[in-house]
Amino acid sequence: MSTRTEYCGLVAENLMGQSVSLCGWVHRRRDHGGVIFIDLRDREGLVQVVCDPDRAEMFKTAEGVRNEFCLRVDGVVRARPAGTENSGLVSGKVEVLCHELTVLNASVTPPFQLDDDNLSETTRLTHRVLDLRRPQMQKNLRLRYRVAMAVRRYLDDQGFIDIETPMLTKSTPEGARDYLVPSRVNAGQFFALPQSPQLFKQMLMVSGFDRYYQITKCFRDEDLRADRQPEFTQIDCETSFLAEQEIRDLFEAMIRSVFTETIGVTLAATFPVMQYSEAMQRFGSDKPDLRVKLEFTELTDVMKDVDFKVFSNAANLADGRVAALRVPKGAELSRSEIDGYGEFVAIYGAKGLAWIKVNDKAAGRDGLQSPIVKNLHDAALAEIVARTGAENGDIIFFGADRRKVVNDALGALRLKIGHSEFAKNNGLFEAGWQPLWVVDFPMFEYDEDDARWVSTHHPFTSPKDEHLDYLETDPGRCLAKAYDMVLNGWEIGGGSVRIHREDVQSKVFRALKLDADEAREKFGFLLDALQYGAPPHGGIAFGLDRIVTMMAGADSIRDVIAFPKTQRAQDLLTQAPSPVDEKQLRELHIRLRN
Amino acid sequence: MSTRTEYCGLVAENLMGQSVSLCGWVHRRRDHGGVIFIDLRDREGLVQVVCDPDRAEMFKTAEGVRNEFCLRVDGVVRARPAGTENSGLVSGKVEVLCHELTVLNASVTPPFQLDDDNLSETTRLTHRVLDLRRPQMQKNLRLRYRVAMAVRRYLDDQGFIDIETPMLTKSTPEGARDYLVPSRVNAGQFFALPQSPQLFKQMLMVSGFDRYYQITKCFRDEDLRADRQPEFTQIDCETSFLAEQEIRDLFEAMIRSVFTETIGVTLAATFPVMQYSEAMQRFGSDKPDLRVKLEFTELTDVMKDVDFKVFSNAANLADGRVAALRVPKGAELSRSEIDGYGEFVAIYGAKGLAWIKVNDKAAGRDGLQSPIVKNLHDAALAEIVARTGAENGDIIFFGADRRKVVNDALGALRLKIGHSEFAKNNGLFEAGWQPLWVVDFPMFEYDEDDARWVSTHHPFTSPKDEHLDYLETDPGRCLAKAYDMVLNGWEIGGGSVRIHREDVQSKVFRALKLDADEAREKFGFLLDALQYGAPPHGGIAFGLDRIVTMMAGADSIRDVIAFPKTQRAQDLLTQAPSPVDEKQLRELHIRLRN
Repeated sequence: MSTRTEYCGLVAENLMGQSVSLCGWVHRRRDHGGVIFIDLRDREGLVQVVCDPDRAEMFKTAEGVRNEFCLRVDGVVRARPAGTENSGLVSGKVEVLCHELTVLNASVTPPFQLDDDNLSETTRLTHRVLDLRRPQMQKNLRLRYRVAMAVRRYLDDQGFIDIETPMLTKSTPEGARDYLVPSRVNAGQFFALPQSPQLFKQMLMVSGFDRYYQITKCFRDEDLRADRQPEFTQIDCETSFLAEQEIRDLFEAMIRSVFTETIGVTLAATFPVMQYSEAMQRFGSDKPDLRVKLEFTELTDVMKDVDFKVFSNAANLADGRVAALRVPKGAELSRSEIDGYGEFVAIYGAKGLAWIKVNDKAAGRDGLQSPIVKNLHDAALAEIVARTGAENGDIIFFGADRRKVVNDALGALRLKIGHSEFAKNNGLFEAGWQPLWVVDFPMFEYDEDDARWVSTHHPFTSPKDEHLDYLETDPGRCLAKAYDMVLNGWEIGGGSVRIHREDVQSKVFRALKLDADEAREKFGFLLDALQYGAPPHGGIAFGLDRIVTMMAGADSIRDVIAFPKTQRAQDLLTQAPSPVDEKQLRELHIRLRN
Repeated sequence: MSTRTEYCGLVAENLMGQSVSLCGWVHRRRDHGGVIFIDLRDREGLVQVVCDPDRAEMFKTAEGVRNEFCLRVDGVVRARPAGTENSGLVSGKVEVLCHELTVLNASVTPPFQLDDDNLSETTRLTHRVLDLRRPQMQKNLRLRYRVAMAVRRYLDDQGFIDIETPMLTKSTPEGARDYLVPSRVNAGQFFALPQSPQLFKQMLMVSGFDRYYQITKCFRDEDLRADRQPEFTQIDCETSFLAEQEIRDLFEAMIRSVFTETIGVTLAATFPVMQYSEAMQRFGSDKPDLRVKLEFTELTDVMKDVDFKVFSNAANLADGRVAALRVPKGAELSRSEIDGYGEFVAIYGAKGLAWIKVNDKAAGRDGLQSPIVKNLHDAALAEIVARTGAENGDIIFFGADRRKVVNDALGALRLKIGHSEFAKNNGLFEAGWQPLWVVDFPMFEYDEDDARWVSTHHPFTSPKDEHLDYLETDPGRCLAKAYDMVLNGWEIGGGSVRIHREDVQSKVFRALKLDADEAREKFGFLLDALQYGAPPHGGIAFGLDRIVTMMAGADSIRDVIAFPKTQRAQDLLTQAPSPVDEKQLRELHIRLRN
């Protein structure tokens, strides 16, 4: 039997009158006026196959086929009768008159219809093989492939080399929890699956490869959220001899080129660059969604002496903050909507949600409707209106607490309102793609529980040149040459210029309270490498799963991964993980705890 | 500081007179006539930098630099003085007169010279970061990258889609030993790292993706040989609706295209195809090195009644074999060389190595020199000479034992002699690239220890259509639609047409003595998938490490892997595996055995 000649979904007018051989699946079968119509499906789409009773043997076969049978069809392309064209299909103007029909494989009745859009995730993941037949899933995974190839093409053009780094690596517990792999040959010892190829790519720079990339799996054994998987895919890049701005330009151009090439979207010619401190100040977030046209107004200085204790207490805390979020036209929000927002911010630790509706600016205090107005003096009220730029018909929400709580709660509220129908109807949400860089992250965050500084990114991030001294004198003031690429409120990539000097790296380890012995045990190979003329270098890693999810407009990264895990870290299709033989455990020198 | 303008190794005459900025490492520094010459190295090669004492500050810096310092050089390209050109370098006709010299990073004295070719592997792997600076290692890893990209381009052109399959999979102990990953969330359960994405790629075919590929890491926890690593990289491919021959043609063309594109080698326009049985018969190996112009001669039938018990006993065994290996002009081999070969074949289980030197064919028995001639009757001797086609001056070696021992021992001897200087000098070895397909492997091999049939490839391989009945009646006679691609005696790829019918798959499981419950527990998801109109499909997996090793002419696959493991499965650079915290083990619900 000769090879198929065409994909079903690509049979079109240019093949009119020609013999074709197709292979595919029965998407739908219907009998109509003594003729059997089969919509035959393959990865490229559908084509209508007509089985006429005047070829008796073939027709008999056609009578036996059911949904999801795998068929081969040999026939001739002809025009569909006038009025029966389907403009939604590439093959919509033609049909294939079947001469020969071969059942390549029968199918039992599928547990669900492929076009059923209301399946539970459990059903979809258990029957993933069928779920992946759905046109949307086929599209998502092909988009994923095109994105990866566009990335490769761009990086290849720029002189980057894909170099594979190990999957069986050393466990260096810093940051997330490692997946461990017991060693059989070296009893009592373990490999770790990489959380990222960070140190290997830095060592490749020290080795002089100059420009490295890899599209590779990384692993974190953390409790899963909607956009997390135990294994995820990183576009991991590193380059030598470039300054921070040059690195950002290079990868900004990559993302622009990938979006254009794969989904025809033109992103901003220059991405805005925003300091971390400004992002937190204006949006309470280091990954602001700039589609939302709402911003914080700083009020901490204004509220130090007001009677309303919630405000004045927060304003007088060392790490307190009082901020406002003005929502234009928000006075139309109902009391129950406002109460709903109050419950929402509680999730982020806010103890309440104060608000003021601006009914009539000109009327001063009397024009402001709010339970809290009576406890705010005139100067404060005037300043609120002036600074927020509020107009009549607006509502102003307030956050007052420790800085982190205010940023989290009011930042979440900003998104909640910004993504609502209200915002879309009132010009407060601008659809489209809003990328930006967030830069100048702090080197360290203070960990109250451990009473020590921990790295905001990772301990290999370079401090800004002018902040080197702060490593020893005031770690909290030290800013890093770190940058995140943010798109519509998602962090899609993050990177930094790395430390390339051994003395600076040692200082950072000391600031992290990693003593010299421990530093050497964990990272001796890095410290050694830095001593041999390590070049200035830096890079970035993008989350492929997230980027494709956004591009596909999918609900979850699980919709752009062929065989994802559930939130319980299980593969419902193959039933992994699973118990193993005692013999296997014995060979690995481990036993189960009871 | 502006970006570098050129790679060192690419500075050539076209830049004559121009200002350049370079970044790289001090490969060599020498003082000559009051001038300092620095060979500056980057990934593209070397360029000579001239530091003249008339720029005092720069010269002072130059005096301080040592090998492997990382430098930036700003200067002007000029011609080298006549007679000092170096034709071995792209930059060999020019040099860079240094105007400004910046030490980007100093280096302590390296533990070895980069051009030292006599380093132990332990030294190289411990100091891998420096080892990777060696031009040969840079070349190897870039070749590896170019091979991978050529593969991707070819497969992309052919409509293949790269789809990522999971790294955290289900343990199904069949074949090699799994690497296990304890689950934290699901106490007492384990993931396995994939030995290959075999079942996932088959399921992708069932899902209708039609053509899949992936360049991906696979894992086998086996004791390591020279060409094995715990993690290795497979070019993994699968396609639907093609027959065996079509699949082979597709991937033969891929390998041809990759060889041409990356190393400019034109492989045979059509690879020879040889049945497994013929390969074993003629070469004692399923991966014969066809560069070696030596073949076995079958003598089992001739030796059944000779006095020489070694031969007649073997010839009368059910699984015995007597075979000859004629070595043209081999009569010149010395007694000690022959004795050496005798010791060599003992490694493969041979109990001795009989031989006959053909001094004078015309003289019959008297023209044959050998300790065994007296125990062979005239008819046997005549047949030996006739069948081997021996000429005066040849030597004939013999193997007589169980078939497996003869094939292994005489097959190894064929290679040993075939790769020797003697063979090269006597036209018995033809340098170049000799690819072939070995096909029609047996479905099963009999495992004496377990007293059952086991799969030669894997249990998902399709039997030949005409051998389906043998699955139940005579598994040993059943041949598979399996094929290996062999190049110069290395298996570089292997694949098969897969079983796409659930009933056939169940029969194979039964032939393997996997009862229905066990089959369902281990492979239920596959059996289910096959029921939903699984398409005919098949594929292949190539070993990227091996292919690149051969192309690079490297001694070991460790020379084409950036960070390989030792034979003890250790990473000497990062010291993995290593002990981990008790806390980590507790979270994973395991403890160490004492």
